[in-house]
Amino acid sequence: MRIEKYEIENFEKIYRTSFINSLAGFRQAVLVGTKSSRGVANLAIFNSLIHLGAHPALFGLISRPDSVARHTLENILETNEYTLNYVRKNYYEKAHQTSARYDKDINEFDEVGLNEQYTIGFGAPFVAEAVVKVAMKLEDKISIPLNDTILIVGSIVHLELDSSLVGLDGYVDLSAAEVLISQGLDAYFTVNPIGRLPYAKPYLL
Amino acid sequence: MRIEKYEIENFEKIYRTSFINSLAGFRQAVLVGTKSSRGVANLAIFNSLIHLGAHPALFGLISRPDSVARHTLENILETNEYTLNYVRKNYYEKAHQTSARYDKDINEFDEVGLNEQYTIGFGAPFVAEAVVKVAMKLEDKISIPLNDTILIVGSIVHLELDSSLVGLDGYVDLSAAEVLISQGLDAYFTVNPIGRLPYAKPYLL
Repeated sequence: MRIEKYEIENFEKIYRTSFINSLAGFRQAVLVGTKSSRGVANLAIFNSLIHLGAHPALFGLISRPDSVARHTLENILETNEYTLNYVRKNYYEKAHQTSARYDKDINEFDEVGLNEQYTIGFGAPFVAEAVVKVAMKLEDKISIPLNDTILIVGSIVHLELDSSLVGLDGYVDLSAAEVLISQGLDAYFTVNPIGRLPYAKPYLL
Repeated sequence: MRIEKYEIENFEKIYRTSFINSLAGFRQAVLVGTKSSRGVANLAIFNSLIHLGAHPALFGLISRPDSVARHTLENILETNEYTLNYVRKNYYEKAHQTSARYDKDINEFDEVGLNEQYTIGFGAPFVAEAVVKVAMKLEDKISIPLNDTILIVGSIVHLELDSSLVGLDGYVDLSAAEVLISQGLDAYFTVNPIGRLPYAKPYLL
């Protein structure tokens, strides 16, 4: 089936949103923890985590101005701090529930039943139940003028994970931890490993 | 195990690259097809596909200046056209092999054993074997000054996929097509569905 640009534009709005979001494929589900300047903890699921570089260690997140993520963005801009948390598959309903449009003075940890955890010297809340917890510092905020989205660029301040997940070559075995991944607006998955391959060099297969 | 920023900075380079790349989690593996102004087809695997918006339908890709992706970026800037191709799991070795540093005048389709496919009026090559083929037009090129990476922003021109993959609500069932996903620099996976959830509204679980 071939679908043209004008057909996508003429799709019913909810159908189009679901189609384009799910077409973008599978991605890491990440719970982003922040605290407002008034001290209210916030937790929101994102599926737009991007690896930007390893040295310095930089990750990106996309924030749309009209989305539930706007409180997250406001808090990050106010405090410069946020956390990235990966949870196991059995938390998928709680993770999804953070996407509801709660008011800014509502603590989503309490609403969905996940626990806040803090480390000394860092203000943003971690998800206690998460298997990977990353403390992030805001480094840049880049506008994408075409559709008023924002690329949040952050550096890793510190992180916590089980040492058994880290291989001798530095590879973090997230599949062993059964971390949750997502597709589109509402679909959740874990992964089946196929294999790891050696560094590719130019030659005929 | 807690790891601090200075420890990451002091990791051995290849270890650090593997650690940070794999820490960023699972993502859609996408083969990006381009053609140089001299007419040479290019194919390179990316793991940085980003959903930027549904209306207009915009996807992003991250390109690092020192990576194998530089030929892809050069071709996109020269021609304004590129394709996104998702392949099934059985093509994972060929997909990975496109990450080798072939010279710019080498056609990676030929080198790895995948077939070029074209549609009328669009210059960039599709992967004939792909289950999802998306024609993209360059819309913007956004610099991330912190580490000299580029966010390539493109709009969907047209796309091809099996109609059986598209649900009544617009959801594209990529898990049914067993499309390849990746983690880090060298690990490949398919997914296990957990479930889809209704649109979340603010209430206690």
